[in-house]
Amino acid sequence: MKREIFVGNVGIGGNYNISIQSMTSTKTEDVQSTLNQIIDLQEEGCEIIRVAITDRSSLNPFKQIVKESPIPVIADIQFDSYLALKSIENGANGIRINPGNIGSKEKLKEILKLANQKKVPIRIGVNSGSIETKYKNHISSKSEAMVESVMDKVKFFEDNDFFNIKISLKSSNVKETVQAYRIIDKKCDYPLHLGVTETGTFFSGAIKSAIGIGSLLLDGIGNTIRVSLTEDPIKEIQVAKEILKAFGLRKNELEIISCPTCSRTTVNLISIVKEVEKRLNKIKLNKKIKVAIMGCEVNGPGEAKAADIGIAFSKKRGYIFKKGEMIEIINPDKAINRLVELIEKL
Amino acid sequence: MKREIFVGNVGIGGNYNISIQSMTSTKTEDVQSTLNQIIDLQEEGCEIIRVAITDRSSLNPFKQIVKESPIPVIADIQFDSYLALKSIENGANGIRINPGNIGSKEKLKEILKLANQKKVPIRIGVNSGSIETKYKNHISSKSEAMVESVMDKVKFFEDNDFFNIKISLKSSNVKETVQAYRIIDKKCDYPLHLGVTETGTFFSGAIKSAIGIGSLLLDGIGNTIRVSLTEDPIKEIQVAKEILKAFGLRKNELEIISCPTCSRTTVNLISIVKEVEKRLNKIKLNKKIKVAIMGCEVNGPGEAKAADIGIAFSKKRGYIFKKGEMIEIINPDKAINRLVELIEKL
Repeated sequence: MKREIFVGNVGIGGNYNISIQSMTSTKTEDVQSTLNQIIDLQEEGCEIIRVAITDRSSLNPFKQIVKESPIPVIADIQFDSYLALKSIENGANGIRINPGNIGSKEKLKEILKLANQKKVPIRIGVNSGSIETKYKNHISSKSEAMVESVMDKVKFFEDNDFFNIKISLKSSNVKETVQAYRIIDKKCDYPLHLGVTETGTFFSGAIKSAIGIGSLLLDGIGNTIRVSLTEDPIKEIQVAKEILKAFGLRKNELEIISCPTCSRTTVNLISIVKEVEKRLNKIKLNKKIKVAIMGCEVNGPGEAKAADIGIAFSKKRGYIFKKGEMIEIINPDKAINRLVELIEKL
Repeated sequence: MKREIFVGNVGIGGNYNISIQSMTSTKTEDVQSTLNQIIDLQEEGCEIIRVAITDRSSLNPFKQIVKESPIPVIADIQFDSYLALKSIENGANGIRINPGNIGSKEKLKEILKLANQKKVPIRIGVNSGSIETKYKNHISSKSEAMVESVMDKVKFFEDNDFFNIKISLKSSNVKETVQAYRIIDKKCDYPLHLGVTETGTFFSGAIKSAIGIGSLLLDGIGNTIRVSLTEDPIKEIQVAKEILKAFGLRKNELEIISCPTCSRTTVNLISIVKEVEKRLNKIKLNKKIKVAIMGCEVNGPGEAKAADIGIAFSKKRGYIFKKGEMIEIINPDKAINRLVELIEKL
């Protein structure tokens, strides 16, 4: 069990749900566009947003963004400790720094002191692309180098009575990322922010993130996640949601189980599934629902029985199951309407 | 290390590369459409194809498909042992059965005898949706039930001198699937065919498959993979390729590392990356190439240095790196052409 920290009103660690983060891609100085993007992201499911503090001209806009944002806002700081201090003063719900590039130890101490006073958590974020030179060569693997780099910083934070910490260790290499998190997970009890970084465009980025974040969540590692894509951040939230859905980690979610059609399938299953998915996505669910739509009698009845509502097609008929019991036999033409109707009733 | 088996000329297990499989969705009786689909799939990267033997009318078409297919063909058999025997006689390079639903032990023995004579490997494939009743209730988890069900069959095969085995244990639940493969991986040395089943439509299916297959490959488990999607099987191959790419498991592959733009990015990185990706996808590579395209000076130079060719943009310039050395500074407008040019030279 990891320690609990709070980014604004969002708990991370302990028994809190795994939260979804993203980062704005607008200019921070353009307050209205940034707030619009934050609202869009929140509506899609984003629970914490990070905003880059590029330079001093970002500071006043950031203050206004924090004030009006519907979700907690984290300031992303690189290089300049002044920006970290000012972001905290301007109301940041959290800050993210790579302590290795923030300047002197004295400057870091100032940040820790102010963050402690204001109860603002700090993410220590080390990326494989910005690892300090001293850790680069003397250790066997890059994952271990990243972990050693972070643990050094953790110790410095602790020596300065700062424990309001979250950690990330991102590499663009999936295997390195997973290894690094697996090592750090055993070394300390600070909550972990998961992500694979610089994953590329939508498709390959979604796959890399799913493997990296997914295999860690599978082993119970990770407290908050951010999918990084070279894409509209809305898509980051969509991928993040799918990853959490694969583990049943989202409330009020719809899960559709459907088979990869084969020669046995006599109905047009792909279009049936897409249509049902489209219609169901418009319904606001108040609980988790599992729907199975299966093309033949091999695995069909088994999966259909295991779902809340399921249908298995044979050559001429659709067999509808509800909570494991076959409740009706219908013509495949009527399957879509009937399924949606039954699910709405649930 | 797993035993080696051969599906046609494709080695599975041992030190062989992880191969990509798919399944035709055409009617098996429609030989020409099925062969066309197989050729399309092969061109996309499919290395082994499976074809459903629906009933006796599939048998002659299957014979012709095997004869003309450019890749090995596996017959997918359910329920009817006669279809298994005839498929082997008709040249199948492998057969897939769920021994629990193939009928009596005597019938299974006949299949094993003929497959041994013809050196045809058999995949024992158990799905959570078609697990036998006797294993359903007396064991703690579904994963263990699937493993116990398979191991029983393995013993029967071995008792009948049959060792040309491949195993799969697919569930529509990602966690169950991974657990089942982790358990069986320790219990025997037969090569494993990985897949999550009934994953739904493209997006959620790709994510579920990436998590399930990816987290197993990450731990060195798995010898051949099939991504199941309720979609055109071409997309199954695309997802499979991306999963293998994330581990550097494809030859002649292009890997693009790019950052998730933020307020610091001053160039239109999303369109630059998409354009570079599009142009590079047209080039036939003769080796692996890693390209980094980064939007700012924070992680940019680090990632760009680690790539074969990399570019990191600052506010007004692009810094091009080749094998870790900065080789030129260019105007961002010229970045796409120059990058593609340099990569073509590699």
